[in-house]
Amino acid sequence: MTKPVWIKHAAQLATLASDVNGPRSREAMSELGIIEDGSVWLEDGVVKAVGTTAELEQQYASRAHEADIVDASGHLITPGLVDPHTHVVYGGSREREFEMRLEGSTYMEIMNAGGGIHATTRMTREASEKELIEQSTRRLNSFLAHGVTTVEGKSGYGMDLETELKQLRVMKKLQETHPVDIVPTFMGAHAVPPEYKGREDEFVDIVIEEMLPVVAEEKLAEFNDVFCEKDVYTPEQSERILEAGKRYGLTPKIHADEIAPYGGAELAAKVGAISAEHLLKASKEGIHAMAEAGTIACLLPATALYLREEAAEGRYMIDHGVPVAISTDANPGSSPTTSMPLVMNLACISMWMTPAEALTAATHNAACAINRQDQVGSLEVGKLGDVVLWNVKNYQELQYLFGVNHVKSVWKKGVQVVGADGEKVVSNPGVVLERS
Amino acid sequence: MTKPVWIKHAAQLATLASDVNGPRSREAMSELGIIEDGSVWLEDGVVKAVGTTAELEQQYASRAHEADIVDASGHLITPGLVDPHTHVVYGGSREREFEMRLEGSTYMEIMNAGGGIHATTRMTREASEKELIEQSTRRLNSFLAHGVTTVEGKSGYGMDLETELKQLRVMKKLQETHPVDIVPTFMGAHAVPPEYKGREDEFVDIVIEEMLPVVAEEKLAEFNDVFCEKDVYTPEQSERILEAGKRYGLTPKIHADEIAPYGGAELAAKVGAISAEHLLKASKEGIHAMAEAGTIACLLPATALYLREEAAEGRYMIDHGVPVAISTDANPGSSPTTSMPLVMNLACISMWMTPAEALTAATHNAACAINRQDQVGSLEVGKLGDVVLWNVKNYQELQYLFGVNHVKSVWKKGVQVVGADGEKVVSNPGVVLERS
Ligand SMILES: [Zn+2]
Ligand SMILES: [Zn+2]
Repeated sequence: MTKPVWIKHAAQLATLASDVNGPRSREAMSELGIIEDGSVWLEDGVVKAVGTTAELEQQYASRAHEADIVDASGHLITPGLVDPHTHVVYGGSREREFEMRLEGSTYMEIMNAGGGIHATTRMTREASEKELIEQSTRRLNSFLAHGVTTVEGKSGYGMDLETELKQLRVMKKLQETHPVDIVPTFMGAHAVPPEYKGREDEFVDIVIEEMLPVVAEEKLAEFNDVFCEKDVYTPEQSERILEAGKRYGLTPKIHADEIAPYGGAELAAKVGAISAEHLLKASKEGIHAMAEAGTIACLLPATALYLREEAAEGRYMIDHGVPVAISTDANPGSSPTTSMPLVMNLACISMWMTPAEALTAATHNAACAINRQDQVGSLEVGKLGDVVLWNVKNYQELQYLFGVNHVKSVWKKGVQVVGADGEKVVSNPGVVLERS
Repeated sequence: MTKPVWIKHAAQLATLASDVNGPRSREAMSELGIIEDGSVWLEDGVVKAVGTTAELEQQYASRAHEADIVDASGHLITPGLVDPHTHVVYGGSREREFEMRLEGSTYMEIMNAGGGIHATTRMTREASEKELIEQSTRRLNSFLAHGVTTVEGKSGYGMDLETELKQLRVMKKLQETHPVDIVPTFMGAHAVPPEYKGREDEFVDIVIEEMLPVVAEEKLAEFNDVFCEKDVYTPEQSERILEAGKRYGLTPKIHADEIAPYGGAELAAKVGAISAEHLLKASKEGIHAMAEAGTIACLLPATALYLREEAAEGRYMIDHGVPVAISTDANPGSSPTTSMPLVMNLACISMWMTPAEALTAATHNAACAINRQDQVGSLEVGKLGDVVLWNVKNYQELQYLFGVNHVKSVWKKGVQVVGADGEKVVSNPGVVLERS
């Protein structure tokens, strides 16, 4: 039996509770449900009570001695962050390619030296399940040290049945062994495999006829994602893949309009995607269609920074009724980071989102983007005991003092997994966490 | 007596040793002096030996048992980072202003609500020395947790004699009580005090006739800085202030060409400034004049990010012979961050500097910008025992895996001040360090 945890006297407890239970946009994105001198009682893995410290002192007067008591005076408390778009399971590392590009190498020189997405595909194909689990565990540890308690994870570095399944099975095993929850997405059409260049329709057939049935049969994914982009998959090809996924019970997601306006946002609305990703170049029509359909925009400002692109129009989307979530897009090519705190900062800096909107986008709306809003993204009775204690006094400071990981402690399902001052702790299933 | 420390088996030990002892540019910025399977022996506050582990095993065979031994297998070791441009000593916090701006408040509304630089001036004037020491200590703790062992600090939030002296005296006290070394700069002409608007020359007289003599008499600063910018101080006014400082033995620095091209870079070269800061809009002529004069460009890409400006042309400057240093510019208005790791990442992302150049800019060249290259910025025999052990395997990964503080351990003058996994440690003089 794990002891109950009573975190009390938080300067600000942002519950993220709101009357809007679905994805939030416009004014609802600013509803943080702030409680001053806040308290939360965690037990049996979930939130048992949340309110002012005075309220919980009354409610738990007779049981206070049972609990681990944490004094959060002067600190902000939030729900565990949710990262709704990652490529966390992959093989290898591409830091040398990063350096070559800055040293002036051309794209072709990097490709010839074994760089680019196909390098990751090769290294992921070559890696054993065990190696992938080890590498991904280190990344999940870093997510957790940055306050992230739930992530989505995509396949897509296999682009052959065997490796796609390997990635998804690794996620399933990590779900069993690592405290961070992983919600799996199948993304067989993440790129065009070199051997199918010019024969994309054939590969689409393989995704639909050979991969999707097995993924569904083994229940390895909840979502089905595709890279809809000029010179990758057309809206028509993307639609075929997403509609096929729906027949297997997989909810669509789309990597849309990242490089050029290509109708991706419009397609997301049309097929009823739960979210559309990137959207740097989404058309106004596409944005309005998403607002109409209730499609969540999953925006990735760290990727835009890393690629030296203008960030997506987060401000415009929120003002026009699109619910916005944010994510690291953690991946070895265009966003090798695990810092959701930085992503929140960039939402404010690069997309003119307010500090409150950035927090909603990284918690409740992010949970909605992976259909986990009933479990995570807010601190309400019955939801998971996923809590972050921050080294700042309010949610504004969390975004204002930028570029710093302000995480002080993290609880996952009511168990402390990052320690009192960020020290090494042994988490739930014996995973040793390091800070980076 | 402190025990010697022997850090051994580093996957990469970047010594930053080079034949170029002064500020480095062009190819010299890529000379990291990498030792594989590297070792460093710290004793009496300084580096006593540095080389391969095999070399040190021979040299210290008989004394190994005396030392604290640290196994750095698989890790990168670098000199402690140096931040050559901070405004670390100030009163108050302006997170609410950050939020107001994002909520759509106008500049005048923020000013009326008590925002802007004059808010910090007011709060700094009102703060006691004790309060300033407490606030600044927290910021220095965060610098240290990010691998920074030496910072420059500027006055300039007083703009009256009493407060300018208070800021500089606080730095002197922090120098005695905090493990991070602080190198002080006087910056009486940081802005135009509202009461002198339109009478800037009168305030310049006060800086020259009333402030500089006392600062020099009390030996409170080594450098003399001025904000040379349209609508602040003209190049002529700036030159008067800097030349006056030289007569008192203070070396010039200039906040130059941040908002508009204004001849600041040219002036830096002309007056023999040790460094020019910002330079977002520096003219090509100014850059070439700096190269000619050997003036260091102190570039602040986190400020550019926060202000949504294009970063300075770091790539062009290096290629044209200007030695480049980088810095957080830590301050409550335009760059509220303490993360030199992020600044290194941004040097690569925003200024097209290579990973090696970014590290040189944050160590040796940063030390040169505050005239400390004989003590810090490289790991060589006789220099301070300021060392960072990173949670990455090589210097490329340090920049590639961006937005994450990869610091694992820090030693200042041979004493461990940030712990084995970033946990809380008690530093040299009893300062408790937290991670953020
Ligand atoms: Zn992606
Ligand atoms: Zn400055």
